[in-house]
Amino acid sequence: LRCVLLGYRNTSLHSTSSRSMASKTPVGFIGLGNMGSPMAKNLLKHGYPVIATDVFPESCKELQDLGAQILDCPAEVADKADRIITMLPSSPNVIEVYNGPNGILKKVKKGTLLIDSSTIDPSVSKEMAVAAEKMGAVFMDAPVSGGVGAANLAKLTFMVGGVEEEFTAAKELLGSMGANVVYCGPVGTGQAAKICNNMLLAIGMIGTAETMNLGIRLGLDPKLLAKILNMSSGRCWSSDTYNPVPGVMEGVPSANNYQGGFGTTLMAKDLGLAQDSATNTKTPVLLGSLAHQIYRMMCARGYAGKDFSSVFQFLREEEGQ
Amino acid sequence: LRCVLLGYRNTSLHSTSSRSMASKTPVGFIGLGNMGSPMAKNLLKHGYPVIATDVFPESCKELQDLGAQILDCPAEVADKADRIITMLPSSPNVIEVYNGPNGILKKVKKGTLLIDSSTIDPSVSKEMAVAAEKMGAVFMDAPVSGGVGAANLAKLTFMVGGVEEEFTAAKELLGSMGANVVYCGPVGTGQAAKICNNMLLAIGMIGTAETMNLGIRLGLDPKLLAKILNMSSGRCWSSDTYNPVPGVMEGVPSANNYQGGFGTTLMAKDLGLAQDSATNTKTPVLLGSLAHQIYRMMCARGYAGKDFSSVFQFLREEEGQ
Amino acid sequence: LRCVLLGYRNTSLHSTSSRSMASKTPVGFIGLGNMGSPMAKNLLKHGYPVIATDVFPESCKELQDLGAQILDCPAEVADKADRIITMLPSSPNVIEVYNGPNGILKKVKKGTLLIDSSTIDPSVSKEMAVAAEKMGAVFMDAPVSGGVGAANLAKLTFMVGGVEEEFTAAKELLGSMGANVVYCGPVGTGQAAKICNNMLLAIGMIGTAETMNLGIRLGLDPKLLAKILNMSSGRCWSSDTYNPVPGVMEGVPSANNYQGGFGTTLMAKDLGLAQDSATNTKTPVLLGSLAHQIYRMMCARGYAGKDFSSVFQFLREEEGQ
Amino acid sequence: LRCVLLGYRNTSLHSTSSRSMASKTPVGFIGLGNMGSPMAKNLLKHGYPVIATDVFPESCKELQDLGAQILDCPAEVADKADRIITMLPSSPNVIEVYNGPNGILKKVKKGTLLIDSSTIDPSVSKEMAVAAEKMGAVFMDAPVSGGVGAANLAKLTFMVGGVEEEFTAAKELLGSMGANVVYCGPVGTGQAAKICNNMLLAIGMIGTAETMNLGIRLGLDPKLLAKILNMSSGRCWSSDTYNPVPGVMEGVPSANNYQGGFGTTLMAKDLGLAQDSATNTKTPVLLGSLAHQIYRMMCARGYAGKDFSSVFQFLREEEGQ
Repeated sequence: LRCVLLGYRNTSLHSTSSRSMASKTPVGFIGLGNMGSPMAKNLLKHGYPVIATDVFPESCKELQDLGAQILDCPAEVADKADRIITMLPSSPNVIEVYNGPNGILKKVKKGTLLIDSSTIDPSVSKEMAVAAEKMGAVFMDAPVSGGVGAANLAKLTFMVGGVEEEFTAAKELLGSMGANVVYCGPVGTGQAAKICNNMLLAIGMIGTAETMNLGIRLGLDPKLLAKILNMSSGRCWSSDTYNPVPGVMEGVPSANNYQGGFGTTLMAKDLGLAQDSATNTKTPVLLGSLAHQIYRMMCARGYAGKDFSSVFQFLREEEGQ
Repeated sequence: LRCVLLGYRNTSLHSTSSRSMASKTPVGFIGLGNMGSPMAKNLLKHGYPVIATDVFPESCKELQDLGAQILDCPAEVADKADRIITMLPSSPNVIEVYNGPNGILKKVKKGTLLIDSSTIDPSVSKEMAVAAEKMGAVFMDAPVSGGVGAANLAKLTFMVGGVEEEFTAAKELLGSMGANVVYCGPVGTGQAAKICNNMLLAIGMIGTAETMNLGIRLGLDPKLLAKILNMSSGRCWSSDTYNPVPGVMEGVPSANNYQGGFGTTLMAKDLGLAQDSATNTKTPVLLGSLAHQIYRMMCARGYAGKDFSSVFQFLREEEGQ
Repeated sequence: LRCVLLGYRNTSLHSTSSRSMASKTPVGFIGLGNMGSPMAKNLLKHGYPVIATDVFPESCKELQDLGAQILDCPAEVADKADRIITMLPSSPNVIEVYNGPNGILKKVKKGTLLIDSSTIDPSVSKEMAVAAEKMGAVFMDAPVSGGVGAANLAKLTFMVGGVEEEFTAAKELLGSMGANVVYCGPVGTGQAAKICNNMLLAIGMIGTAETMNLGIRLGLDPKLLAKILNMSSGRCWSSDTYNPVPGVMEGVPSANNYQGGFGTTLMAKDLGLAQDSATNTKTPVLLGSLAHQIYRMMCARGYAGKDFSSVFQFLREEEGQ
Repeated sequence: LRCVLLGYRNTSLHSTSSRSMASKTPVGFIGLGNMGSPMAKNLLKHGYPVIATDVFPESCKELQDLGAQILDCPAEVADKADRIITMLPSSPNVIEVYNGPNGILKKVKKGTLLIDSSTIDPSVSKEMAVAAEKMGAVFMDAPVSGGVGAANLAKLTFMVGGVEEEFTAAKELLGSMGANVVYCGPVGTGQAAKICNNMLLAIGMIGTAETMNLGIRLGLDPKLLAKILNMSSGRCWSSDTYNPVPGVMEGVPSANNYQGGFGTTLMAKDLGLAQDSATNTKTPVLLGSLAHQIYRMMCARGYAGKDFSSVFQFLREEEGQ
């Protein structure tokens, strides 16, 4: 990642907007869930005044105690802040928060920078960008990789899509909440990059689980098999960094009964987005599609709360037991 | 690979057989095809007298000119050599060469070391080992990774299954033809390791091709997408070392119209072996099985002779063109 | 089908609306494409005054010559007719025609019956029903099975979802354009029934093609194999009524180079809708999903315009040719 | 079936062998398991002297009490009978019973008719036929459809592969144990027909289960959905005769907690044979292959002993429960 970022670090700053970046003007934050809450706290820690809202009062209360100003709805936030970050569970929430009767676009000011860190369908990101542009505002999609732990430690990676001239402005804010901020291209490409990565991740993980299981049944020692794969062309992140077979690696969910990590439900959601994007663009994704179905089945069979590497356990059960 | 090999280099040599390893006694070689021929030549280069046979006289002629002794059939080779290497296209050929009317086992001497470098069903390797043991001989499976180029340069990797006490003896010979010799476990585990690696490789390659194609259609630049994947959890050998998208990397088959490399036909064959092994051991391999079918279709649609990364091209075609 | 319909024929008519059904008041028709045009003509034939619109003037001209009144946009049609049928290519078109700036809902009268015969996502049907209800109108989804030929002959089957009390009113109109009108349940279930049928159809067709191909390669005569399947538990509509293997049946697309019939592109579209519905309802559809991908690939490989039974030809190609 | 059989009933009998068919000479029977035992009893009922053997003495005892002569091994049976039927669990058993040290071929008499009703790989049937021919005997494959119930009632269907001239002789014997005897072509085509039927059956069943599940989640009543499918192009044996959804039909396993019927384990076995045949003939079977994997997973997850229509239950589980 460093090389990518260095490119941007060397870039001199040419802001095309009138938003003041030197002084820390208030930043709006909408969506104070498991991810949004620590992200907003990191903005506070970096000295940004935060103006926030969420449908759950208790989430707001916690942030208020830390110094944030809480308002009633997204429209009110848009009335007060010219930089707003949204972090919401799914496409319909994003549409509501931007386009709804009390949505951001009802009161957004010209030149406002809107950064959506939700993971949603890239085509919804594009719709939001068009709607924002009509109001004279700028919309960027900036989904994250890294979970709650990374959010707490400001170690998230942001994949950013939108007008390139605004990337510097976005990066200033996102840099307070993450370790890496990568520019991906026009609006929607941040989502696209995240969805693509997670689809390949799911395929690699299921493939690793199938392969390790087959090798073990053929008489190979799991640690030795992992070592051989990792020296060879079978190598992938799931085999060398996050091996799904208990006993092969330490410090990964498979070493801890598949607790923590990246939940099967979230993976199923992302694969659903990948499938939607593939259907919309008429792209054949045979393995991606089957991976989606496998994680869908896992969700229904008791693996919803486990790390997505538990697919090894799902496939592992022996007949006759 | 080095770490694995170091383990063995530190092992003191306890040969359990009476075969002389210090002096270079003749080595039998059966199967002088695209792979076998350069392998046998490397044995000659290392000073081993070679006694060979093949069904094609012209293959024999070339080796004869280099100093090898040519005999009529595997049985005759077994009569003259107490170390024999076989390199054959498929399971039926191996069965014929070992068990056929003029097969090795008709005249094999007690204590002979039989090393089969063919890629075949591990269950056939086990059968051959049992049959060899009945005659007082030792059978090991030692399939290779690396193609004709690696065979020429003695850079193959051998994955060896068999009695551990014989590994040192096998390694001495195989080391003349390859850069890495990895001990995998009991007979059949060499095949198992190779099959497992190639199944995961196929899954990773198709997954990478699907993902790159989807990302491109969603507006991402292919080079940037590859960079993002390779910094992230989607990373795999097919994305970072052998990217299937033309223009992303140099020096790989995708940069050369998918010529050279590892042919789609060979990948389909190995996936067939993986499928057979999975069926026999009742192991679910959903992605592995679908990968097999995809390469099978490619073989029928003009991709048989291309490198297996051409699956990108296979999936790439746009509707309406 | 007869039994289903008889149930309704025996039902006494209790219309809950003030729409006059005895006299033939004007019927609005929006979408005069390959399917909509013959449907509207059949309404004219049955003596209904038709008020129509379409984005293509030439489509309108033809209907005008037959006596229809042509208006400029859906809103104007809604201003004149209290029964409107829409027949559009996809979800976005439906949203535009109902909810757009010149859409039906801009001028719809209270009590109007809106029947959408497009094949779209059931969740969009539900949205339209909610929007219509707000305006005091009634929305029903009524997608068809049967192609252009059946539309010409008024032999379509309509699968109708919506308030049961309005079914009689819908059936009166639809009966002029089709042979069967089946009530499926609440709004969206007409779409659901169609999508479900076509997903199972696609699975059965690909399954039949794979099976016939495998049997032929194993030495079975195709006609005999079809006969055996059709006497046995492998029997399905694709094997006994629409066999995809040339030479097995007469009068089907496989007997005519896969011309006519139900196009691969349309099947791919319907499978996309099935996939979307499955993703939204978190329903695992492993074979349905793979069937979608296979038809997607076919669209890109020259089969877009052929009947969907051409999957046999797609799978059939032999290696080495 | 009638038409097929009538063809043969009208054929005048030209036996090419010297075996007496008018008088009831002894019939050998090897393999007295769940299927073989009732089959042998039906031969006894029809007045054939039976000479039998099995590895389990208790199976032999029961048949002995009914009048059969029990011998020690297949070779002894072959020494006494010139018509022999075998009914064994899998390919290795068939190879042992025919080719083993005490196998049939050790003592088979010239002109003996060997009928194997086991369900095995067609390539093994072909091997056995070649081996039998070397001894002057005739081998036919004649796998059955129909379970233990049909075996008891002599209602099995036999699919027969082998030399056509011998079909009449085979049919005489098989007609005592089944209601239908279908000639399929050369040796191996009986197996091929059975494997093909069961592969398409599995695809249709899983497809029906996915479709019914999707429809139900989209709000359709299961009985109504089944009715619509069965009137339409989605119709298949699994939807109209053996519906997998509890409550839709009576008298099928889904109405009885998936007890009885055709076990998931047997389906998985047959799909494994289909996969092997497809791999050997390089035939792409995408859905067939995935169906195999699904039944393989079911075997490992508690469905091994249930009817194969329980795939509906397997897919049905809801997330969050």
